[in-house]
Amino acid sequence: MVFEPDRLPVPAPVIMIVEPYGGSIRQQNPNLPMVFWDDAALTRGDGIFETLLIREGRICNLERHGARFKASAALLGLPEPILADWEKATHMALEAWFSHPHAGEASCTWTLSRGRASTGLASGWLVVQPISAEKIRQREQGVSVMTSSRGYTVEDYLPGIDVATGEAKGKIPKNPAPWMTVGAKTLAYAANMAALRYANANGFDDVIFTDGERVLEGATSTVVSFKGDKLRTPTPGGDILPGTTQAALFEYASAKGWRCKARELSLDHLYGADSVWLVSSVRIATRVTKLDGQKLPKPNNEKEIRALINKALG
Amino acid sequence: MVFEPDRLPVPAPVIMIVEPYGGSIRQQNPNLPMVFWDDAALTRGDGIFETLLIREGRICNLERHGARFKASAALLGLPEPILADWEKATHMALEAWFSHPHAGEASCTWTLSRGRASTGLASGWLVVQPISAEKIRQREQGVSVMTSSRGYTVEDYLPGIDVATGEAKGKIPKNPAPWMTVGAKTLAYAANMAALRYANANGFDDVIFTDGERVLEGATSTVVSFKGDKLRTPTPGGDILPGTTQAALFEYASAKGWRCKARELSLDHLYGADSVWLVSSVRIATRVTKLDGQKLPKPNNEKEIRALINKALG
Repeated sequence: MVFEPDRLPVPAPVIMIVEPYGGSIRQQNPNLPMVFWDDAALTRGDGIFETLLIREGRICNLERHGARFKASAALLGLPEPILADWEKATHMALEAWFSHPHAGEASCTWTLSRGRASTGLASGWLVVQPISAEKIRQREQGVSVMTSSRGYTVEDYLPGIDVATGEAKGKIPKNPAPWMTVGAKTLAYAANMAALRYANANGFDDVIFTDGERVLEGATSTVVSFKGDKLRTPTPGGDILPGTTQAALFEYASAKGWRCKARELSLDHLYGADSVWLVSSVRIATRVTKLDGQKLPKPNNEKEIRALINKALG
Repeated sequence: MVFEPDRLPVPAPVIMIVEPYGGSIRQQNPNLPMVFWDDAALTRGDGIFETLLIREGRICNLERHGARFKASAALLGLPEPILADWEKATHMALEAWFSHPHAGEASCTWTLSRGRASTGLASGWLVVQPISAEKIRQREQGVSVMTSSRGYTVEDYLPGIDVATGEAKGKIPKNPAPWMTVGAKTLAYAANMAALRYANANGFDDVIFTDGERVLEGATSTVVSFKGDKLRTPTPGGDILPGTTQAALFEYASAKGWRCKARELSLDHLYGADSVWLVSSVRIATRVTKLDGQKLPKPNNEKEIRALINKALG
């Protein structure tokens, strides 16, 4: 009989309910309903999330995810997450997860919702689950990507961007929409999901959003290009979510002598790069093999790049 | 003892689970969790909704809500709602609702979600609940409104707009974002809610979104102006959701001899109108008493206008 790694029974998701105000942490049966009818995450997509990679039994890039989770909560006026509780709950979940004989690499999603209208209290939970075979395949084989406008243009100089990127403090100019939650990683991902469905239906694996010739970001990832010893990524802020994986990569790669810079990138820049990557916490890094149908070069240092990104995640 | 209508015990919400593919309709206890951890409404805000008014025991404006529900589902690639089932479920819920001695006017929200990732099946439910005292107060006393940019600009010529508005069929030009779900009433309302919170925190009751001088829509309503026998509303489509209450009003008012037209409206137009209204299904119509702090005139035909809108809802 041939060994079929895909067919091993995978563990059921492990869910922990995390009281956002510092109460109990308790396990939720994934086969039972979890959320009440009047939770704002359900009725308005009103909440935030972070997805963390669990690799070799450890939580990757925890500090950056925690910082962005806090920044997102602040932008939405949600209670400040007690990160010690989220970390503790994650470890509790991992203990349950790894008690399964076939538990391996996993993702852990933290969700903080504005909560029930009838109580006025925020609600929170996390889910540890297996990484899909599709994501693993894309890591290894890369993705064929289409570019697309977002369908909307975010106005410049929005608040929150500085909070989320940790940059340009005190330089916040007049805000056209002072309540805008751009820069927060919110649950309102339906448009991104629609873009991915459209891409899949048209023979592509993924989408890179563009504004004219300007490269923004992937539907669920950050764009990074390599050319010689130079790494480039579109400047986060505005309509570009600051990426935790990209940040970890740039910090680590800089220390190793690579020249890393965030700046405005054009489509031409991508076509002229040695290689183009979509980086994100769970898929980690997947190479863009085709962009709008045009084959991108396979770099001769692909192994080195993968090792760099993997090391950056600790 | 003084009669205090607010203090009457109101009925608990009535929830019905509606199988989107035409299965069972069953009641859900509102005190128990309802939705599973992997429902897309929860994880991505990926679903649609309609809120209907229940008045004098009847469902208002059912046909238009049904049509928009279907159009929204089509835009998001959700299964086509079986409207007969949703209507049946609504009547079942109303029977339960009106079995309570203090049941009165109510709202009924239909939700259709892309459903559980683990099953790939859409999920649906409806909730009948009391109308908040705040909404009733705003109907009677009007609202003080601030204007604000949305914080983003939706690109012209998006698909779906024609489907949702029922206009300009076959005139769909090249789409900058062919997957865009503009025109659908989706669960991704977090930004609108953030705008309302910001308004409330700054002493306003509501928000009208603008694009420069161009009037778009309320955060949860359609803008309608009255001047003499003329009714005006911003042309729906693009970044303006077609309003079911506005549509009912314009059809009824036209038949009664009012001159109704959708066209581009400026802020100056609102300041020059006899009266400005925010119309929506549950609040019905609330007069804008102040716009960005400037008092708007109280018309001498307020009673007539209210009667007109009420009649339009059947």
